[in-house]
Amino acid sequence: MGTYRIDLAYLGTGFHGYAAQPNVRTVQGELEAALERVIGPVETFVAGRTDKGVHASGQVASFSAAAAVDCLRLQRSLNKQLAPEIAIGKLSRVTDDFHARFSATGRRYTYRILNRETPDPFVAATSWHFTTPLDVAAMQEGCRALVGEHDFASLCKAAEGKSTVRELRVVSWSELGDILQLEVAASSFCHQMVRSIVAISVDVGRGRLRPPEVAEILEARDRNAGSGAAPPHGLTLVEVTY
Amino acid sequence: MGTYRIDLAYLGTGFHGYAAQPNVRTVQGELEAALERVIGPVETFVAGRTDKGVHASGQVASFSAAAAVDCLRLQRSLNKQLAPEIAIGKLSRVTDDFHARFSATGRRYTYRILNRETPDPFVAATSWHFTTPLDVAAMQEGCRALVGEHDFASLCKAAEGKSTVRELRVVSWSELGDILQLEVAASSFCHQMVRSIVAISVDVGRGRLRPPEVAEILEARDRNAGSGAAPPHGLTLVEVTY
Repeated sequence: MGTYRIDLAYLGTGFHGYAAQPNVRTVQGELEAALERVIGPVETFVAGRTDKGVHASGQVASFSAAAAVDCLRLQRSLNKQLAPEIAIGKLSRVTDDFHARFSATGRRYTYRILNRETPDPFVAATSWHFTTPLDVAAMQEGCRALVGEHDFASLCKAAEGKSTVRELRVVSWSELGDILQLEVAASSFCHQMVRSIVAISVDVGRGRLRPPEVAEILEARDRNAGSGAAPPHGLTLVEVTY
Repeated sequence: MGTYRIDLAYLGTGFHGYAAQPNVRTVQGELEAALERVIGPVETFVAGRTDKGVHASGQVASFSAAAAVDCLRLQRSLNKQLAPEIAIGKLSRVTDDFHARFSATGRRYTYRILNRETPDPFVAATSWHFTTPLDVAAMQEGCRALVGEHDFASLCKAAEGKSTVRELRVVSWSELGDILQLEVAASSFCHQMVRSIVAISVDVGRGRLRPPEVAEILEARDRNAGSGAAPPHGLTLVEVTY
């Protein structure tokens, strides 16, 4: 028995999310099918189960195999089978206590908004095209209230019986030309949390909310107090830390 | 009667090239159909008829209309109809002697190569993934022989009765991380000329040709002396000058 870590990237556009589901094309489904062709059936675990349309440049998965695996050969075979939508940047043997999901200590995401009148075909797959001008300084000011440990119930799609308390370590909006980018980091995120932060930020940026109202929404601990969720295709999982 | 200039960008992935053809999806076909819905049928002309799979960030088209056109309204309507694959950056009235193709004095293209072992889903649509390491300095050295006015018959797909003499103003290979980028500029290019320059450059970069052999290939004026053409999806028309 050996345990293996897969560092992978994917463009989420053509997938119904990461997690395997019957009858639809998913990243996990494609990855496990490709693995099975080389080393037989294995169960994989993943650090961040991204939603339909969400991308990853720094996703991590792991699996255990009964027989020894030639890492470089398996990586090359997976890349041949899965390119160009999924790419395996590294495949390595790790200690048997490694678990892509449970061993992870942090996740970092980015969210990109193309904020101008005209669309851009070259970033359309990886950014939300939003034409109303946004005030980035106000967005950053509003988001300051989210840093630290809070109950993010107002900013999460509820999952019954599961805690919505999280510790947000980084929330940073930046501007590069017409692209506004949010960077967020936490030990983990609840469902739709990043896209909910983006939706509230955009309401601040366009003047529908004042920056101090973000704290009030957070304190309400009520999903209906928020602004819903921004579309998935602006979101990318960029790093998992262990 | 008025004459109008359209500055447009498109991701070529989903199109059978720029030029309209029966029964297939083309950029010109989509553009003219969208124009027809707003102002009735018009004939458009274009600066650079890109091949299937080739992109443009700075393409220019023109047309004449019998009635006056509200430029901003037409631009918005076209963007609504054509996004996200085609984007109209500007639509403006020009003098009646303007013709997107015949008035153009220069065209500039880039070609991108992802030169590393691992694929990258985020640049796969707009770059050629080439895994053998390439020597960019040798590629640049070889390409120096191409600058100036030459008969590029060795580097063009022949079109009967048409001259293959062109004046190449700029040929520059640069390197940014794993991306190698060629920038070329000329008054005009013959068919497959940029992709043929890339194919020869790659043969130099991998050591199959020595840099001085590029001049010999050029002097042969024979398509069979060249290295064929690199794939279309690394190529982008970035600017047309008037």
